[in-house]
Amino acid sequence: MLQSIKHKLGGMKIVLASGSPRRKLILENGGLQFEVIPSTFEENLDKASFSHAYEYVMETAKRKTVEVAEKLRSEQRLPDLIIGADTVVTMDDKIFEKPRDKHHAFEMLSGFSGRNHSVYTGVILLIPDSSTIKPVEDSTIKTTVQDGFSITQFYEVTEVLMGSLTPEVITAYIETGEPMDKAGGYGIQAKGGTLVETVRGDYFNIMGFPLHKFCKVLCAMLSDKKS
Amino acid sequence: MLQSIKHKLGGMKIVLASGSPRRKLILENGGLQFEVIPSTFEENLDKASFSHAYEYVMETAKRKTVEVAEKLRSEQRLPDLIIGADTVVTMDDKIFEKPRDKHHAFEMLSGFSGRNHSVYTGVILLIPDSSTIKPVEDSTIKTTVQDGFSITQFYEVTEVLMGSLTPEVITAYIETGEPMDKAGGYGIQAKGGTLVETVRGDYFNIMGFPLHKFCKVLCAMLSDKKS
Repeated sequence: MLQSIKHKLGGMKIVLASGSPRRKLILENGGLQFEVIPSTFEENLDKASFSHAYEYVMETAKRKTVEVAEKLRSEQRLPDLIIGADTVVTMDDKIFEKPRDKHHAFEMLSGFSGRNHSVYTGVILLIPDSSTIKPVEDSTIKTTVQDGFSITQFYEVTEVLMGSLTPEVITAYIETGEPMDKAGGYGIQAKGGTLVETVRGDYFNIMGFPLHKFCKVLCAMLSDKKS
Repeated sequence: MLQSIKHKLGGMKIVLASGSPRRKLILENGGLQFEVIPSTFEENLDKASFSHAYEYVMETAKRKTVEVAEKLRSEQRLPDLIIGADTVVTMDDKIFEKPRDKHHAFEMLSGFSGRNHSVYTGVILLIPDSSTIKPVEDSTIKTTVQDGFSITQFYEVTEVLMGSLTPEVITAYIETGEPMDKAGGYGIQAKGGTLVETVRGDYFNIMGFPLHKFCKVLCAMLSDKKS
């Protein structure tokens, strides 16, 4: 979808405020050009203070993105757009992030075995006042103005049915080292892909970024009707 | 899943009878080691002679795989397992393969815009009589014996909801060159991923290979109960 707005994207400076190699890959494969400036915001918001996982991921994504935006403003090098995101897994009203250790990864994956869980990603599109991009609003996205920044936020949820996994399969998978830096303890794009029976929703959302919805919102922001 | 049977896979010779770079990538990412020997079988079976797309993909996959098996037998280098596959897209009882040209790709993608279509992949696991692998049967897979080969076949279907695509978006996408060698005229793992709203089923099946089901069947073939 981004190819149709290539002429507009060409002159823009875009920053991805995330150190996730998977988010970088998804956006690069989609055809976007950007610079990566990872946030150093510690993901330590109190989960109990949010009534739903989607509120938690959007707030965490917002804190990460604003942190990078403020850093860039202090260095007087604000871009046209800063993209931020946060991803968690939920099951039975519990939020799962990256496993603490192998034991924790085993516990998570055993719990997911043969069952459905949900992957939530919150996305932030932060537009500095100085940018030529103008925010849009529709019924599924929300835009707020804060201290010289326009902040558009939305989330996406994807359901994942994990196959029935024996303890041997889980242990052998953990030994690959893949689970440790991933929300929910598996990476669907690599060896973890063998564990997943079906998905329902945006596949890339499971990897950490809802590509289609992001492209739709960005295309709307850059459409001729808005500029 | 393949990590748990690594000790058994280690000594085996496995051939992928497909030239698709995406099938190679899926199986490599899943952790399988194999040699690629593409089939030269011309995919020209009469679609009208099949009552359903899944029969068509399984038969095409079978012809491709047997062609490679016979070639390797004549060269006296049969492996333990030959994997073959074929993928098509269906909508409104019509089968879509690779687009003939840009005009055809535009027609296909315009038709898919804003609607659901189905991706069918037929998979063949061909086991020569000389192999140490033994076939398994369950209610969803079928195994036949043919001329010194045991042929296990199954298929997988994944539903894809394409986003609403403007003619500009479709034209710009076709100009990337991505559609031409892909069933249905898009590649979900690259720029085509921006076009897809949701998927339902095995994601890798859309790329051309149902990874989870393949791993399940292979694990069953190599389980201790069978050997």
